Amino acid sequence: MASIAHELAKKQKEISISEFFEKNKHILGFDSLTRALITAVKESVDNSLDACEDAGILPDIFVQVEKVANNEYRIVVEDNGPGIVKKQVPNVFGRLLYGSRFHVRAQRRGQQGIGVSAVVMYAQITTGRPAKIRSRISDEDVAYECEIILDTKKNRPQTMKEDFVIWEKPHGTRFEVNLRGKYVGGKQSIYEYLKGVAIVNPHARITFIQPNGGNVVFERSTEAMPPPTNEVRPHPEGVELGELLNMAKYTEAKKMTSFLNTEFSRISLRVAREILDAADVPHNQRPSRLNLNQAGDIIDAVKKVKIMAPETDCLSPIGEGLIRKSLKNVLGETKASFYAPPVTREPKVFGGNPFIVEIGIVYGGQLSREDPVQIYRFANRVPLMYQQGACATTQGIENVDWRRYGLEQRGGKGIPYGPAIILVHVASTKIPFTSESKEAVANVPEIREEIELALKACARKLKTHLNKAERKSKARVKFEIVQEIIPMIAQKSAKIVGKPVPDIAGTITKIMNVVWVDDEVTHNKKKTHRVSVKLYNYTPKNQKLQLHMVLPYEKVDEKSLTLEPSEVRDGTKVTWNMKKVAPTEVFELAFDMKGLDGGDYEENEVFVSGIDAASVIGADVLPGDWDLEHITITEEKAAPEEEADEGEIDYDEGAEVIENEE
Amino acid sequence: MASIAHELAKKQKEISISEFFEKNKHILGFDSLTRALITAVKESVDNSLDACEDAGILPDIFVQVEKVANNEYRIVVEDNGPGIVKKQVPNVFGRLLYGSRFHVRAQRRGQQGIGVSAVVMYAQITTGRPAKIRSRISDEDVAYECEIILDTKKNRPQTMKEDFVIWEKPHGTRFEVNLRGKYVGGKQSIYEYLKGVAIVNPHARITFIQPNGGNVVFERSTEAMPPPTNEVRPHPEGVELGELLNMAKYTEAKKMTSFLNTEFSRISLRVAREILDAADVPHNQRPSRLNLNQAGDIIDAVKKVKIMAPETDCLSPIGEGLIRKSLKNVLGETKASFYAPPVTREPKVFGGNPFIVEIGIVYGGQLSREDPVQIYRFANRVPLMYQQGACATTQGIENVDWRRYGLEQRGGKGIPYGPAIILVHVASTKIPFTSESKEAVANVPEIREEIELALKACARKLKTHLNKAERKSKARVKFEIVQEIIPMIAQKSAKIVGKPVPDIAGTITKIMNVVWVDDEVTHNKKKTHRVSVKLYNYTPKNQKLQLHMVLPYEKVDEKSLTLEPSEVRDGTKVTWNMKKVAPTEVFELAFDMKGLDGGDYEENEVFVSGIDAASVIGADVLPGDWDLEHITITEEKAAPEEEADEGEIDYDEGAEVIENEE
Repeated sequence: MASIAHELAKKQKEISISEFFEKNKHILGFDSLTRALITAVKESVDNSLDACEDAGILPDIFVQVEKVANNEYRIVVEDNGPGIVKKQVPNVFGRLLYGSRFHVRAQRRGQQGIGVSAVVMYAQITTGRPAKIRSRISDEDVAYECEIILDTKKNRPQTMKEDFVIWEKPHGTRFEVNLRGKYVGGKQSIYEYLKGVAIVNPHARITFIQPNGGNVVFERSTEAMPPPTNEVRPHPEGVELGELLNMAKYTEAKKMTSFLNTEFSRISLRVAREILDAADVPHNQRPSRLNLNQAGDIIDAVKKVKIMAPETDCLSPIGEGLIRKSLKNVLGETKASFYAPPVTREPKVFGGNPFIVEIGIVYGGQLSREDPVQIYRFANRVPLMYQQGACATTQGIENVDWRRYGLEQRGGKGIPYGPAIILVHVASTKIPFTSESKEAVANVPEIREEIELALKACARKLKTHLNKAERKSKARVKFEIVQEIIPMIAQKSAKIVGKPVPDIAGTITKIMNVVWVDDEVTHNKKKTHRVSVKLYNYTPKNQKLQLHMVLPYEKVDEKSLTLEPSEVRDGTKVTWNMKKVAPTEVFELAFDMKGLDGGDYEENEVFVSGIDAASVIGADVLPGDWDLEHITITEEKAAPEEEADEGEIDYDEGAEVIENEE
Repeated sequence: MASIAHELAKKQKEISISEFFEKNKHILGFDSLTRALITAVKESVDNSLDACEDAGILPDIFVQVEKVANNEYRIVVEDNGPGIVKKQVPNVFGRLLYGSRFHVRAQRRGQQGIGVSAVVMYAQITTGRPAKIRSRISDEDVAYECEIILDTKKNRPQTMKEDFVIWEKPHGTRFEVNLRGKYVGGKQSIYEYLKGVAIVNPHARITFIQPNGGNVVFERSTEAMPPPTNEVRPHPEGVELGELLNMAKYTEAKKMTSFLNTEFSRISLRVAREILDAADVPHNQRPSRLNLNQAGDIIDAVKKVKIMAPETDCLSPIGEGLIRKSLKNVLGETKASFYAPPVTREPKVFGGNPFIVEIGIVYGGQLSREDPVQIYRFANRVPLMYQQGACATTQGIENVDWRRYGLEQRGGKGIPYGPAIILVHVASTKIPFTSESKEAVANVPEIREEIELALKACARKLKTHLNKAERKSKARVKFEIVQEIIPMIAQKSAKIVGKPVPDIAGTITKIMNVVWVDDEVTHNKKKTHRVSVKLYNYTPKNQKLQLHMVLPYEKVDEKSLTLEPSEVRDGTKVTWNMKKVAPTEVFELAFDMKGLDGGDYEENEVFVSGIDAASVIGADVLPGDWDLEHITITEEKAAPEEEADEGEIDYDEGAEVIENEE
């Protein structure tokens, strides 16, 4: 037995990171020939976009894929970025785990220092050929060009050739590599990847020369760079105990107060003192003396003390307006009947990293009713093409009971069916990908939860749209019948018995016994939208209600308002205290909105309060504290929550169900 | 601009592998508190099992999970393995990418040199505490015990404390760690993981002390170790050009012939010469002189020359018998009505690595008809608990059109619905996991293809079962009616016209015009199975057919055979040349099978040939060359293939569809 332990000991040795990935190239996204080619383009284009944005340059990216032999392609990716200084070129392209963005807490596409070096490695494994890089920085007259391979035993670049060459480009980088792969069309293709890049990077121009020579240009649709994103310090929420101890060990701060204040975001000196008091740690203690118990107490104190949400200037969401425009632009041919107003949520935090979730839903038109909905996934403005099933965005979609929102879904679990496209974008200073191939967001509970809330918020708008037309027309028919037939009966009866026709308004209200809300948006050519909300009191008593709408209030022409709102919250949540409405009377609220494009505001979101849900038709009752995520659709029969939970698809993760031992 | 390039250059630096994973702990399986706890147990138990098997010891594993504080647990995993020599303990537990199995081409659970060190790192990040390891090798009197942490800046272990202690165990290793986590029950739990381990490792005893003190023992069901698996050299199929060049550079062989012969499996000197001739490379050339073109030619030549399939002694599949027993054992309470005979395929190769796929299907009983089928996934005898959606096994299941095999499936794509459990096991000298957390098999085309073939082979047996009972009883009813009514009509008519009753056998055959095959298996208490196949010729002409069955021929009692088979292929594919059967006559084949357990042979697989499919009822026509994967079920209306392919679920990968440019 001892000899076995010694025998085994002899075999135990270090594994170089590049040997590891050489044997596990599928982890890097090279698991099939088709995917290898897409991964190679993706890694290089992501790098180019990051470089341009770091330098504040509008990206102009050139991509060429050329067939060299059966299952062998040459890929060229060229950008107009700032270039890379000569000394760093081999390291950037020929060494795994080397880069500029890993230690930075900021929204970038690349974060691992692996991507493009992995392409170089895969290329040399499969074709035996080096990669060729050319780079010029703007204060040099010439470009530096070299051929490198990655020595996988040492994880170091090896320069095979180098030279200075004339290049007409004032600055930029060109990456050229031969690799084994397979070029395909269809949904998972280089073309679709570049189209996705164009959707979420409207400031980039992308030129694509296909293997058949075909030339596609995705023109930029804006000359404005996205606002630059700043580096941030970690937000204290979710920082782990071991990390805190480590930070305390290496900080330059001399006291605990300044340590917390300088190393974290959103901790002012006042908040720092508050945390330390709650944790019973002296303000002046040297951070390096922080012990395990104290660190634990600080972690607990952070949860109790009120700390501001993270800064948003470190994140670059696509934005609601742009999501809608991009979707309309790209999906024009589907003639979709409804583009749900996109949702961009407030930033949240996981493990100290701020993140934002954005959702867009497109419905109807020529989208297939028989197939599962299409899912468009993006992370930090990069389209995710593979591993849909492993992605927190997909799991979020699977966890929502879409039957409540008008889509078909067996058992209320899984990817729903119906004529819809769901777009999900996660932006963060740190995207927790499930692997180095960066194709799926890990199932971090904080992120999945936000995705689900965002999906529900957007789905609610879809449901509102689907319900509204139908239930309004039904209600109208009912009212028309009652309003025509009862007066007729009254007249007939009066005639028969020879008495005057009685006032039957009261009778009608007794029969109906509801408040009916009817709203509409009309737009004219001058880009003015006219909004009208009418409230018919068909109950036998006076009604004094509040009317609520969700809309961009800055677009409301205040002069046109027939009633001043009593409150405008967050610029979008507007409340009107209505005057008393007597039985059979009507109240109308109307106003104009200006400066909107045709499709920007197509449907009102109307709520009422001061009445029970069963007594109102045509609008929902506002949930407490504008809690719109948890609104219940009352008039359509929704499947009860319990039934939905029974569906036992084992869609991974998310199983934090029972604490067995308690 | 130049200043930007220089500015960026300053930020570019190396990232240590442990810093990388410290920031990307979700990649290692620590993305949620629940999963963190399962991952920690999984990594340590996998290590323990590997160690025991390396030493030929029947594993006796002890697992304890204990609640320490809110969301903090202590995990202890103890084994009776050979122990680890003192000098290696810190490296094995406190250093990422360090281990004994990475450079070995053999079927092992651990292959990356990451797992258990990652647990140590996660523990210290979340609780600030070191891991405690005790290990004793059998020629030492005492055990070595130490507390270590992993210095993430350097990726080196740091020993905090060490000592020698008395330990009653003669040899073994004990691993103890405190970490942040959450203990849950349900489908994704430590209990279910250990149960899965027990299913596929019947030689292991596992004791589990739960946080509530509850004690579960999974007893071993066999005292026999699985046959030891050998290391193998790479199989030449799928070796990449760059790898070949690298191997040629580092080999000790002096000539190309001996290089190919010694560095690869299944290349004899004769085959080596054949390859070199086909590639036009001199036999005596020094391998180090191999150039790019020559290497490419050798790769091409390998595809042309006939090379034996890989050795199987490097793999340890579960085996058909054990799969059935384990499933019956564990799933007894479901009272399933059918356990399809499991399928263990022949080994195949991807990128030089042999692998085997195994499938089991359980159907009926109390399994829910309303839910998606349950999927049990295993890789190298380890249950896979997470990332089902990303796994090639799941994608294989989604790609099969299960409507052809009796399960419900919308559009013929996606996870089917119905009362079934599908077990998939992939065994390989190298499992290509999608990430370091080892929870999903990457979508390597060779593997996914094998999975689909294996699934179809097993599903066919399910379909046979489902169809058989039903169609036989239908056919019987039809025959009985015809055989009763026509003679009655004949008698009546004869009576009326006063003529003798005609012979109507010929008339019946004209009406029916089919060959009817009826088979059954009966078993008695002596474990003898009696098999009978009857063939009724209800056609108007003589039939001379061949009868084929799939069964374990070594179990057939040859003395009992009423007809000698004309061929037995692969020990399972048996053919009988039947004598001529005249119209209205019956042919019967019967024999006994011995040495089988009650459930081992429950249903015959019968085929015929020498007749067109439309003219036979009760058996399928054998597809050409026993191509059972591609058999068409003729009598039940199967959905046409084209329709199935239209379902456009975008289940990742697998999109190698069109070569656009050609």
